[in-house]
Amino acid sequence: QENFDPGEHQHLRYNPLRGSWVLVSAHRMKRPWKGQMEKPPEEDIPRHDPTNPLCPGSRRANGEINPNYESTFLFDNDFPALQPDAPDPGAADHPLFQTRAARGVCKVMCFHPWSDITLPLMQVSEIKTVIDKWAELIEELGPKYPWVQIFENKGAMMGCSNPHPHCQVWASSFLPNEPHLADLNQKMHWSSRGEVMLVEYARQEAERKVRVVLENDSWLVVVPFWATWPFQTLLLPRRHVLRLPDLTSQERDALASVMKRLLTKYDNLFEISFPYSMGWHGAPTGPHLKEDMSHWQLHAHYYPPLLRSASVRKFMVGYEMLALEQRDLTPEQVVTSSFFFFFFLTSVFTT
Amino acid sequence: QENFDPGEHQHLRYNPLRGSWVLVSAHRMKRPWKGQMEKPPEEDIPRHDPTNPLCPGSRRANGEINPNYESTFLFDNDFPALQPDAPDPGAADHPLFQTRAARGVCKVMCFHPWSDITLPLMQVSEIKTVIDKWAELIEELGPKYPWVQIFENKGAMMGCSNPHPHCQVWASSFLPNEPHLADLNQKMHWSSRGEVMLVEYARQEAERKVRVVLENDSWLVVVPFWATWPFQTLLLPRRHVLRLPDLTSQERDALASVMKRLLTKYDNLFEISFPYSMGWHGAPTGPHLKEDMSHWQLHAHYYPPLLRSASVRKFMVGYEMLALEQRDLTPEQVVTSSFFFFFFLTSVFTT
Ligand SMILES: O=P(O)(O)O[C@H]1O[C@H](CO)[C@@H](O)[C@H](O)[C@H]1O
Ligand SMILES: O=P(O)(O)O[C@H]1O[C@H](CO)[C@@H](O)[C@H](O)[C@H]1O
Repeated sequence: QENFDPGEHQHLRYNPLRGSWVLVSAHRMKRPWKGQMEKPPEEDIPRHDPTNPLCPGSRRANGEINPNYESTFLFDNDFPALQPDAPDPGAADHPLFQTRAARGVCKVMCFHPWSDITLPLMQVSEIKTVIDKWAELIEELGPKYPWVQIFENKGAMMGCSNPHPHCQVWASSFLPNEPHLADLNQKMHWSSRGEVMLVEYARQEAERKVRVVLENDSWLVVVPFWATWPFQTLLLPRRHVLRLPDLTSQERDALASVMKRLLTKYDNLFEISFPYSMGWHGAPTGPHLKEDMSHWQLHAHYYPPLLRSASVRKFMVGYEMLALEQRDLTPEQVVTSSFFFFFFLTSVFTT
Repeated sequence: QENFDPGEHQHLRYNPLRGSWVLVSAHRMKRPWKGQMEKPPEEDIPRHDPTNPLCPGSRRANGEINPNYESTFLFDNDFPALQPDAPDPGAADHPLFQTRAARGVCKVMCFHPWSDITLPLMQVSEIKTVIDKWAELIEELGPKYPWVQIFENKGAMMGCSNPHPHCQVWASSFLPNEPHLADLNQKMHWSSRGEVMLVEYARQEAERKVRVVLENDSWLVVVPFWATWPFQTLLLPRRHVLRLPDLTSQERDALASVMKRLLTKYDNLFEISFPYSMGWHGAPTGPHLKEDMSHWQLHAHYYPPLLRSASVRKFMVGYEMLALEQRDLTPEQVVTSSFFFFFFLTSVFTT
């Protein structure tokens, strides 16, 4: 339409991975904020704290002593939401009271022996080690479980209860809601267009350029057209890749480098160690390892909660919980905003 | 299954309104919490603050002066996410870049002239006035818009930026994601079982008793079988009612009384003015006013964020955003926990 300006006029955008809509009302950024102010992330974290159960040599809740690890360190979550042997609740007695068995394992992986470091402050080679471990975890747990969710909650604002750099891995006997939607929608796109949805999407975004945050030969980072969180990004391989273990060594190097650059950008945006939840979605595993999963494309979602500054977050509350998600600036505005666009070589937030 | 104990063994439960699953892992409540602590709600709110744009006689952002209102007060949101006249974005040039027009209005309704009062502290007759105004709003905006979302964000933790007791009303030219799912799923239940899903559900819960928080002749409050937030509740009429304006005067009295009792219970739970987002879902309006919407049942959702105390909330983060929602205690445990079960006649939290 002639007079339609996405940065001025509210409109809906379609999320083809979830099959849902988001309301974009950019003009809302003008409203004053007198609500909750977030505390800045803690800055004086000791490099080593013998009472922190994630540190090398510490005692964990189950009584075990951590090794004096020098790189990554993987262990079983001491308070797992999924255990391998939970009994089956059995058949439901009524369609409105349906239950299903849930089995799995929950693991924690420390990225580094130091508590006062984060991924963007690590060496590219150290990030590569983390990527290799992620791929190994998919190879190890994939044969047994249809879904292996690797995710990182970074920062107290994102429910992270330990400042030591770490991620979690929850493998489950079921395909959870979000990957289930992604599976359905990618399958539909594949059958209707004969193209892998996210491969086609990455190609389109690389051409359109307006939402590209970072790229290299193997990877592309965009603020997706349908982003809900203000500074949400989607990390995509350019090549068709089903799962993390399928990445070549060069692709892993390139991924480590693009992750360092993306997370440095995030840290520089509001000059704090940027909080987010992130996670990987690849083709389902378990019985699906034997099926044709060509409609899938590996990708990572980054969901950061902040909106305007280190202390003002976006709240996904009333309208978002009851009706649909709403955002206050367009994805294109995020990319052209000088902060996010400008490329600093190192994080201004250093220890 | 013989050895299955829902309070001990993780399992999935089905949400028939959304068509999604929630992971219930009750044993997780045992884990220690060293993460973010929430600030308690402000307690010394002045009854009248001439600089607060929601108070009687105050000047708002658009320059208008509020009347010296003595009951409820309705006005247009000065920073609306939806405006009546936004241009149409036009046809998408690609299936992965779909947009739709979004038009509507956003209103704010103050519940009371005082800033230091909340719904549970108001008289039942004053709450009834709020309910009457809600019904009027549906009658006024319904003919023009397919969806009129009434919601209240209460407390800074829920993104509320003004302590003055108020709710919002966002009417839209489209059916948002959540009511769209509720419409589909209620329709499916209706055609497969010939019963209104939530009428059948209320009857079942009234018989099973284990998740009932409150009831009277016209209303039932339950922690739904599929609740995701720890203290989430669902408020249901016992009779088949499509929309708020269909409630009789007696039903509105009974609703005011059940709301006061429910919100008093919430306040007493952790002895603070309890934060939550709540909202009404009734049959869609606009063109749907002329359609058969008998599969719908009016209901209100209460989504409170707290988990263990006034300062420890549930975080819906990494796994919840990327995979599926997880809860740490069963809905049945919530109802039998002494705090929530015990009925105080008045809020221990008073001004
Ligand atoms: O309109 P308010 O109260 O300023 O804003 C609040 O509620 C809105 C609707 O749920 C959210 O989009 C905002 O993030 C939240 O801060
Ligand atoms: O396992 P953690 O880090 O203690 O817990 C954190 O992440 C989990 C998975 O996203 C959430 O369920 C918890 O609410 C959050 O506090």
